Order: sequence, then structure tokens, then C-alpha cells
Amino acid sequence: MGPAEVAAGAAMAAGDGIRVLLFGPASEMGEVAEGVEVVDSPISISKAAEPAAAVRSTPEASIVRAWRAVSAGDAQALVSGGSTGAALAAGLFNVKRAKGIYRPALALPLPVPGHPVTLLDVGANTEVRSEHLVQFAFMGAAFMSTVLGVDKPRVALLSNGEEETKGTPLVLETHRILAESGTLNFIGNVEGRHITNGEVDVVVTDGFTGNIALKLIEAVSEATVDIVDTAIKSNARSRLAGRLLAPAIREAEEAIDPEGAGGAYLLGLRHLGVVPHGRFTRYGVSQAIMLAARGVREDVIERTHAELEAGHALRPSRDRPSSDAAATVPSRT
Amino acid sequence: MGPAEVAAGAAMAAGDGIRVLLFGPASEMGEVAEGVEVVDSPISISKAAEPAAAVRSTPEASIVRAWRAVSAGDAQALVSGGSTGAALAAGLFNVKRAKGIYRPALALPLPVPGHPVTLLDVGANTEVRSEHLVQFAFMGAAFMSTVLGVDKPRVALLSNGEEETKGTPLVLETHRILAESGTLNFIGNVEGRHITNGEVDVVVTDGFTGNIALKLIEAVSEATVDIVDTAIKSNARSRLAGRLLAPAIREAEEAIDPEGAGGAYLLGLRHLGVVPHGRFTRYGVSQAIMLAARGVREDVIERTHAELEAGHALRPSRDRPSSDAAATVPSRT
Repeated sequence: MGPAEVAAGAAMAAGDGIRVLLFGPASEMGEVAEGVEVVDSPISISKAAEPAAAVRSTPEASIVRAWRAVSAGDAQALVSGGSTGAALAAGLFNVKRAKGIYRPALALPLPVPGHPVTLLDVGANTEVRSEHLVQFAFMGAAFMSTVLGVDKPRVALLSNGEEETKGTPLVLETHRILAESGTLNFIGNVEGRHITNGEVDVVVTDGFTGNIALKLIEAVSEATVDIVDTAIKSNARSRLAGRLLAPAIREAEEAIDPEGAGGAYLLGLRHLGVVPHGRFTRYGVSQAIMLAARGVREDVIERTHAELEAGHALRPSRDRPSSDAAATVPSRT
Repeated sequence: MGPAEVAAGAAMAAGDGIRVLLFGPASEMGEVAEGVEVVDSPISISKAAEPAAAVRSTPEASIVRAWRAVSAGDAQALVSGGSTGAALAAGLFNVKRAKGIYRPALALPLPVPGHPVTLLDVGANTEVRSEHLVQFAFMGAAFMSTVLGVDKPRVALLSNGEEETKGTPLVLETHRILAESGTLNFIGNVEGRHITNGEVDVVVTDGFTGNIALKLIEAVSEATVDIVDTAIKSNARSRLAGRLLAPAIREAEEAIDPEGAGGAYLLGLRHLGVVPHGRFTRYGVSQAIMLAARGVREDVIERTHAELEAGHALRPSRDRPSSDAAATVPSRT
């Protein structure tokens, strides 16, 4: 997703009435639409860099400047088209955690036709403790109800079996806490098929498992469409019919296209962030900007805080927030 | 998968020249084919039971009697159509671990058209240590080369990113050991898309992540075929064409049908076990029996031992094998 494609997506969102501040190399953006204001920021952090170190050492990087603009009130939310790690690290340094939050999480609305399902964490936290997963559950539920308009979202834990006895010790402990929470519509453990059949709205897991799950879902759905397509084309009798079917296949592909959902929501900071997939085109970028705008309009941050408070899931203020995940989480090995 | 369906699958395998001893309720099996010998065992362990306790308290259960027959040399391998947990627990009690093995693992050949990929562990061990994952890598490679005939299988770790810096501390440590092993064709970390695009032959992970991955793959591929099918049927222009396409769609469904692969291989015991999926029909049962027979013919157990020895990955004989996973593995929380 190059600067010109991001600028084109910004133009689409601006056409829908959203004011966009665009940080990036002005010289690579092409012509910029009305409603889009470019802040020339030619320095960027690549995907390969170690995010925290790169963010610290590069205060003029576009992602750092963009978060600073949000922090200063020049914008209400951030959409990052670059490295997810850099967006997260720069967010932590420049806008900080929301009050009472242990760890931000990446929440992704999955393109399940007919019933979007939000999966979190899809990669912000490789290792977590149960109090983190409990907060992810509340954060995901608040996102689903405020931004996606799902009333009393059904929240579940991703596990290796539906039974409450299934899972790692971490999952078992989180299950117990969520089952006792009272304010959340917690429906227990789920497996793969619940994600695709519409029986759950929010699926909670750690960022390691969630990232693997997300990439598997994308890869398997794409590969399956390819398999059907190949079967159609390899059969002489169906080849002609296949041409008539092209619009229907394209419709199916669009239904499972991640771009429509706009990308992952970065929950748990004092301001909103949305991280579209690196492969997105201008359409996906425009959807990401609209998703961010919807979160601002619906005041997702205040409402998430209220739900966490009602569920007694806020971090006690005497706890010092941990700035380094690796240093505070016991090893699995 | 009822006793009659299992008996029908056994009949299909017997037709291919495999002698089958069938343990289960004789009265529910219907007519039994030539080459199938029924040992009436009306007591069974249900999926809901706690496997280890049920196996200990029910010596006459069909799964326990079947493993005892294998242990006594009356059969060379076991195929279980019942609870996976019971098959694993009864195997551990009645045939024991193979020499030098820490933990048995469930290895599943995934139905990726054109290039089968073996995923392990898909559920035998919810929590593991790095020496377990290292053995799974060797066990999976030996299975892939001996039973599935793949020369120098490419082995990878499932992680939240391809880079060697990605993963939990457990994945990072296992990565380091496998990279230094020398005898294994270790290609590093993989994500979802490598599983579907043929770049890897054996994918190693813990039983929690592997079980979640397996069920996601099944659910997403089925749901995607349904989405394409619905798109075809909802479009007036393509409905007629859709009828012509039915054979091609069916062909695609068969290509991704898990029954063809026969189910999961239980690796690491002194005798072979194969666990077909609970939803399988007689065809899947017959494939599972053939898979077991192929493992016996190819002497997968001896050859796995040889590969583990060459890779210095056998459990040192001074270590006592652990009989209870939960008691020996540090908690993740």
C-alpha cells in the first residue's frame, strides 16, 4: 500500500465528509483531493525495524508525527497504513494507555458474511495474563456494541474444545473470571466452526494464537475459492458455465474480502487507532478511515471505560502499567 | 460414526487385503464382511468422560481391549473411531511410549490439494516444552517421509510471523534448537499462507494451537465452499450454470475432504494408532485403516526412532517420563 494508494483512499473518505490529515512523503502521493491536508513526512519506519527502538530513535517518522497530532487534538483518531508494530509502539509512547487499561489489543472484525465476528488480540501481545484477556473481552464487547452496533454481543474464549475443562491454565482461569463477571454476555469456549456459523460476536485469545488464527482464516478462505475456481476451469463441461458464473464467484470473493471491514481496531489507548492490512487498496484504506470516524462519533473509548468499570475489570490504580511485555510475563517454557 | 459405519469401513479395508479385528458392540454392527473378525465389546467410553479416569476404571472398554490386543501382538496397529482422549489415554496405559519419547503427539495430514501438509500436535498435549516440540518435528518428518513418501520433508514452526524473532519464548527456543540440529530440513517459522501454498511439508506446534488451527481450517474451508455455493444460487443468471457446475463443486469439496487423508496419526507410542475424525463415514474409516497398515509396512516406528537418534533428540534414559502433563509443565499464567 504505497503513499499514492493511501492518498486515494483518503480522498474517498474525504468525499464522505471526513477531514483527513495525511502524514507521509508528499512527493509520492500524486494529486491530493479536497478535504485532505498533507503534512509532508518523508521519513518512515519499515516493517523490518524493531518497533520500539525505531520509534524512540526516529521522532520525525510519519507514524510518530501522526500520533502526536492525535495526542495534540489536531485529529481524533489515527489510521496507520504502515508497520503494525510501529503503529502500536508509537501509540504507546505518544498517546499512552487509556485509564485502567493493562495492555492495548488489536481487534479485527472478520469478514464472515451475514454476521461479522470480532477477533482479538490478533497480534499486539504475544503473551498475556488472565487479567489482560478479561479486559480484551470487555474491550471487544464495547467495540462490537458501539462501533458495529451489535446489542449485547456474545463473547467467547477461543480454545481447543467447547467444554469449560478445555484449554491452557490461562484459558481455564480466564474462563472462570469471565463466567463470574456478571455484566458480560459470556458464552464460554468456542472453536473454529463457531466463528464461521454466527454463534458468537467477539472471540478472545492471546496475540500469538489470534495472529495465527487470523492468517489461517485469510489463507484458507482464499485457497478454497481458488480450489473451487480450479475445479470449475478443469472441467470441460463446466468451463463455459464458469464464465457465466464469474460475477457470482466475484461476489463471494467480495463477501470474504477483508478490505470491507477496514482493518484492525487498536483498542486500549487514550485515542483510537485503526490498522488496515498492508495489502489493502484505496478501498480498504477508505473503509479504515470510516471505521475510525465511527469510533470517534460513537465515543468508543468512554463507553469501553464504562463497561470495564461496570464489570470491575479496570486495572487498579496502584498497579504500575508495564512498559515491556517480555519483562513482566512469565515464560511458557 | 456408529458401529455399523465402522464395520462397513472395516469391510472396505478387508476388501483391500487388510485383516481387521473389530472391537465394539457386535449386535449393532450389522452383517460383517469376510476378513473382519469381531470381538464383541459392548462397553464404550463416551467423549464426555475424563479420559484417564475412564480408561483406568473400565478395563473392559472396547478401546482398552483393542490396545491390549495390539500390545499382545494380535494386531499391529490401532484405529479408534471413538473419543480421541480415550484412545490416547488407553494407548499410554496399555502400550506405553516408544523408547526415548517424551510425549506422543497427534499428527494430521491436512487435505491441501496437490501437496499434503502434516500438522502436529493437533491436540494430544495442551502444554509442551521445547524438547517436546523438537521431538514432534522429528516425528512429523519421519511420518511424512516413511508413510506419505515425501523425501527430505521441509519442517517449520507455526508462529505469528515468519521472522525468527517472532513467537512466544517457547517458539523462539525451539526455533534455535531446530536450526542447530543439522539433520532436519528445518525451514523456520511459517504462517497460514505457507500451509495452503505448498511451501512446507510438516508444521509443528503445541496441541492447543494445533487443535485450534485444525478446526479453523476445517470450518473456514467448509464455510467458503458454502459462500461460493450461495453466491451461485442467489444469482438468477448463474443458477442454471450452477447446475452444470455441480460436479466441479463436488470435486472441489472432495479435494478438501478430510476423509481422504484417513485422520490423525498417533505418533510416539510403541505401536501405531490412527484416529479418524468423529464425523467420518465408512470411506474415512477405510482410509484410516489403510493409513495404519501403511505405517506398519513402512515400519514408521523404527524409522522415527532412527531419525530421532540421528538428530540427538531422544529423551535421555535417566529422565523419568512424565505421566501427567498438567503436573509437570509450568503454567502459562
